[in-house]
Amino acid sequence: MQIRRFADSDWPSVWPIVRDVIQAEDTFAVDPGLTSEQAYDFWVDGHTVVAVNDAGEITGTAHMDANRPARGSHIATASFMVSSAARGQGVGEAMVRYALDWAREQGFSGMQFNAVVETNTSAVKLYERLGFRIIGTVPGAFDHPVKGRVGLHIMFIGF
Amino acid sequence: MQIRRFADSDWPSVWPIVRDVIQAEDTFAVDPGLTSEQAYDFWVDGHTVVAVNDAGEITGTAHMDANRPARGSHIATASFMVSSAARGQGVGEAMVRYALDWAREQGFSGMQFNAVVETNTSAVKLYERLGFRIIGTVPGAFDHPVKGRVGLHIMFIGF
Repeated sequence: MQIRRFADSDWPSVWPIVRDVIQAEDTFAVDPGLTSEQAYDFWVDGHTVVAVNDAGEITGTAHMDANRPARGSHIATASFMVSSAARGQGVGEAMVRYALDWAREQGFSGMQFNAVVETNTSAVKLYERLGFRIIGTVPGAFDHPVKGRVGLHIMFIGF
Repeated sequence: MQIRRFADSDWPSVWPIVRDVIQAEDTFAVDPGLTSEQAYDFWVDGHTVVAVNDAGEITGTAHMDANRPARGSHIATASFMVSSAARGQGVGEAMVRYALDWAREQGFSGMQFNAVVETNTSAVKLYERLGFRIIGTVPGAFDHPVKGRVGLHIMFIGF
């Protein structure tokens, strides 16, 4: 597996991953009806990368950037999406590790996730295993399509 | 004191308030060098209001909106700025109460503040007095110009 910078020519492979994740509506508070163009504007932002498997297929994507401007710009943030076909293969972990390495190299002092859906337990466990902790949980802040209103974790790791 | 909708003709009175707050760099993670036009785009967003004193002077401004789109759109957020000349006169409290009333009337289920600088104790105390609680604090996430790296509180009130 390789993580490399996103190129515009990757979008036809990345868009189905983004589309499936936002249409599932269970992990991101994003309009599930975004067009390809709107989804591109939403996703391709900051330092955007793709995960590529040994067959050359794109199995995941991530973007990362400063979480806030100016006096908050020393803390990074990142988001991750893995194709449904590639889950459980370590793609997410590889991308989170990449993002942490990227943030350290860029001189950030930590990384914050602003809204991790608490029922997305595989992500929460992964982030905790890599050193993030839950700063707090906003109760009922995410309207899960199956589970109803569930919490959104703020998660953080300091470097 | 009156709270009313912002009109574009208010901007010449609102801009000095916004400019002073962002140039102080102690409460908002926003580029202090924003031009008037950039500050307008930053501030005049969602439901934007001004506080007007009995002499007809604008003493404060606030904006409020959904905190997130789609599955997160049932939680509101808001930001507040008070002119330095009018601090300690209840302008902030009047605007927070207005925002809470507005959010309830709009059918939101709660209000979240994403980044309250922990050293801004007058704001933190006001929010707590009006029913907000600190969900958690991201350590060192705000680089205060005098106090160095201080925490950013996530604050929340459910309706």
